[in-house]
Amino acid sequence: MAKTNPGRFFEDYSIGQVIAHAVPRTLSGGERALYHALYPARHALYSSDEFARACGLPAAPLDDLIAFHTVFGKTVPDISLNAVANLGYAEGRWHLPVYPGDTLRSDSEVIGLKQNSNGKSGVVWVRTRGVNQRGELVVEYVRWVMVRKRNMDLPAPEATIPELAGAVAAQDLVLPEGLDFSDYDFSLAGEPHRWSDYEVGEIVDHVDGVTVEEAEHMQATRLWQNTAKVHFDATFREDGRRLIYGGHVISVARALSFNGLANAQMIVGLNGGAHANPCFAGDTVRAWTEILDKAETAAPGVGALRLRLVACKAGGIPGMLRGEDGKYLPHVLLDLDYWVLIPR
Amino acid sequence: MAKTNPGRFFEDYSIGQVIAHAVPRTLSGGERALYHALYPARHALYSSDEFARACGLPAAPLDDLIAFHTVFGKTVPDISLNAVANLGYAEGRWHLPVYPGDTLRSDSEVIGLKQNSNGKSGVVWVRTRGVNQRGELVVEYVRWVMVRKRNMDLPAPEATIPELAGAVAAQDLVLPEGLDFSDYDFSLAGEPHRWSDYEVGEIVDHVDGVTVEEAEHMQATRLWQNTAKVHFDATFREDGRRLIYGGHVISVARALSFNGLANAQMIVGLNGGAHANPCFAGDTVRAWTEILDKAETAAPGVGALRLRLVACKAGGIPGMLRGEDGKYLPHVLLDLDYWVLIPR
Amino acid sequence: MAKTNPGRFFEDYSIGQVIAHAVPRTLSGGERALYHALYPARHALYSSDEFARACGLPAAPLDDLIAFHTVFGKTVPDISLNAVANLGYAEGRWHLPVYPGDTLRSDSEVIGLKQNSNGKSGVVWVRTRGVNQRGELVVEYVRWVMVRKRNMDLPAPEATIPELAGAVAAQDLVLPEGLDFSDYDFSLAGEPHRWSDYEVGEIVDHVDGVTVEEAEHMQATRLWQNTAKVHFDATFREDGRRLIYGGHVISVARALSFNGLANAQMIVGLNGGAHANPCFAGDTVRAWTEILDKAETAAPGVGALRLRLVACKAGGIPGMLRGEDGKYLPHVLLDLDYWVLIPR
Repeated sequence: MAKTNPGRFFEDYSIGQVIAHAVPRTLSGGERALYHALYPARHALYSSDEFARACGLPAAPLDDLIAFHTVFGKTVPDISLNAVANLGYAEGRWHLPVYPGDTLRSDSEVIGLKQNSNGKSGVVWVRTRGVNQRGELVVEYVRWVMVRKRNMDLPAPEATIPELAGAVAAQDLVLPEGLDFSDYDFSLAGEPHRWSDYEVGEIVDHVDGVTVEEAEHMQATRLWQNTAKVHFDATFREDGRRLIYGGHVISVARALSFNGLANAQMIVGLNGGAHANPCFAGDTVRAWTEILDKAETAAPGVGALRLRLVACKAGGIPGMLRGEDGKYLPHVLLDLDYWVLIPR
Repeated sequence: MAKTNPGRFFEDYSIGQVIAHAVPRTLSGGERALYHALYPARHALYSSDEFARACGLPAAPLDDLIAFHTVFGKTVPDISLNAVANLGYAEGRWHLPVYPGDTLRSDSEVIGLKQNSNGKSGVVWVRTRGVNQRGELVVEYVRWVMVRKRNMDLPAPEATIPELAGAVAAQDLVLPEGLDFSDYDFSLAGEPHRWSDYEVGEIVDHVDGVTVEEAEHMQATRLWQNTAKVHFDATFREDGRRLIYGGHVISVARALSFNGLANAQMIVGLNGGAHANPCFAGDTVRAWTEILDKAETAAPGVGALRLRLVACKAGGIPGMLRGEDGKYLPHVLLDLDYWVLIPR
Repeated sequence: MAKTNPGRFFEDYSIGQVIAHAVPRTLSGGERALYHALYPARHALYSSDEFARACGLPAAPLDDLIAFHTVFGKTVPDISLNAVANLGYAEGRWHLPVYPGDTLRSDSEVIGLKQNSNGKSGVVWVRTRGVNQRGELVVEYVRWVMVRKRNMDLPAPEATIPELAGAVAAQDLVLPEGLDFSDYDFSLAGEPHRWSDYEVGEIVDHVDGVTVEEAEHMQATRLWQNTAKVHFDATFREDGRRLIYGGHVISVARALSFNGLANAQMIVGLNGGAHANPCFAGDTVRAWTEILDKAETAAPGVGALRLRLVACKAGGIPGMLRGEDGKYLPHVLLDLDYWVLIPR
């Protein structure tokens, strides 16, 4: 019997099943340094222990996307090894900042199943939870993927489609204990724009572009111990191209969004997201943001913004997302809907 | 007089000579993060402080190959700057895990010399020892290389060919103090297969492939302060190609072997190894393992496996190593014989 | 109004103006590991805590160029976003070593302004100071750049050209507290050559070459949070090439200079520097050094050397810097004039 992991197929999932993902991971300042080398990340709260302390935190946390990618990477061997497509995200919340020295592990509960009409694959919904070494919840999100069946003759399971919130409600966002933007230093953070300067419907063009290299996206993806073949093996796809991990595009776009949203410090909610078109090495990625919603929070001086972050390759135009047919335009790579915390 | 290092030539070595290698090196979590970015390494004992503590260690050590590459890198300016070929390894043993904050240095003793019949070069055998900041032995191995002569007119030294063990005897393997796999968590480690599940002669195909990039192998090789020109300077070889450091292929293959040998946690012995064919950027590396031997150990719940790890580029077939002429097949990159510790 | 940073134009600067640069940065062992992965850096004082302690320091500092690049990177959004050219450096001094855990921020004072005769741009001189979390001065230097005007109709400001020293005087160099090379271990450092072995006028060819990759220079430049578009966006220049950050070439050349100047441990002064020609991925960089001056210091066993470090691409010849017309030869990439500390 083969000892290698064949991955799970559609018929291997059942509602209520909880899968504990392997390989817990201790993170250090090394992962932060690599994050800064791989992405043009400049948010001050994640760059400087001093700045973070002035905001009420004990030290600079690791980027919220480091926590997300680490937790996500663990799920790949169990959830998406035989996935045909990564269909969506919902109900994502960050519960606790992650600091150097923390160890993350994760599990996923199957909350939805629906076989496709072709009988060859189906959609699996899972709620993934990442916890630290004290068992405290760090980040959670729902993700759904289309997975192949192994045995086409098996009957379809009863369809269960979870009811998912269109967005995390502002009052359900979790604020880090002690967070306080009352004495926030806008000059050190890099821009003067605060919560009240952004209006719903406003579009911010982040201007800068980054041309992506094979060595970069592979290093990033491996760093999260995400070993999906399609990202690393140039012989896997017929066209000889390595598909870039969607999370790499998320981090590139988020880092680019510093230019115009330098004070959108912490990510606290993930409302939804689509990897609209594949990204390949050689693409030059740009980003723009639409302000979707605004909310106050209970923390001193802290407001929340709901943002649509769109990453594009060449040809992308800020504000242009879908064509007349309602489909994503061909240059759109990412459409991400998320909540951030920003000084008021 | 030129102040740059010309390297040693064959006539510069003598039996019993001990060469202290330069540039001691302090390792940190940064080197671990880079190791995870450069290789698809997932062994839980090296990824998680919590997992390592549950196995009786004080924290997650740095990968055993980080220790090996660091010690090896130090030897390059003294041993292999004028080497024509890296011929083999033997009698390698890891004596102590390396933790972030440890400082490694190394020396090599010349234990064998044999001039080639052409009078232009000779084989030099050295026993290299890496020690930490407390002077404790961390890793040792014998390596032999073919080195050019500077002065062809010099007479050959008396030939001394060391007697080397074909393999480290299982009872000579050094087990880390406190190591205990009695409560080993197979679920967190990623696979259910234990010592008793592997049979001598069994072949494990590790399935996954990694296409290697110039930026990756150069970063890895520099990280170990190995500055052999042939890895970095595209004008050095006539064909304009940079030869990939053999140790990079070892680490790629070892990391790939997680898929099927996720519980083969610690490397404790190096019995032999050959870099069968050169590896270049663009090659897609795959790996397979043959179980060569099994042994019990004195540590609770800990068994040992002797493994042949073979790395191949395109065209490699698991189990196929040599042609009818006894030579390595052209797609074979690495043939490594080593001992690992695995839960029983 | 656009929220993104348009950068400052020539008319936005005035004499005496002090600009506090954004995004303070905490450095760790992760940045050191990346420095070793990106550059062939081997100076023992920066590689080993033990070696540094034997030289009177509390631990191995981060490379002096890590401090320089971090401080420099912070200035880019304020000083050189609209720069046409980076014209020179002067009066650079390192005041304190930087250790893992330190947080750096920086500000720049405008000390010179001169509009060009074409009325479309002007030269801006700034004195930049990097300080740590205790407000202690870490590194300072003068830099001048040519910056575009936004409004061509504005009158020229009164020209102010600062008087800058041709070189930092030896007696003005700042020596790290406690530095003591009395018991310096030349064997561990890698070369026997000391202060007295170098003669003014001597040329050292550093021999080794490194072929540079896109992924490497972009990772390095991002690591310092330097986000100048021209280094990252292949669509920015008409020729589709990404210009390599001049500081990357400085670090490559300095690291290569280990071979022949292994004991030139600490950089303490920056007298001047020119990025003579652009460097692009694919170039193979080599380096040579001319000994410009020698000085004694008050620290035990410590001497100072003033060095000209020249980086070249293919075609460079050690000692050949300028053509008959007085201009840099086309293969010269960098001409750097700096002070180092070396055992006497």
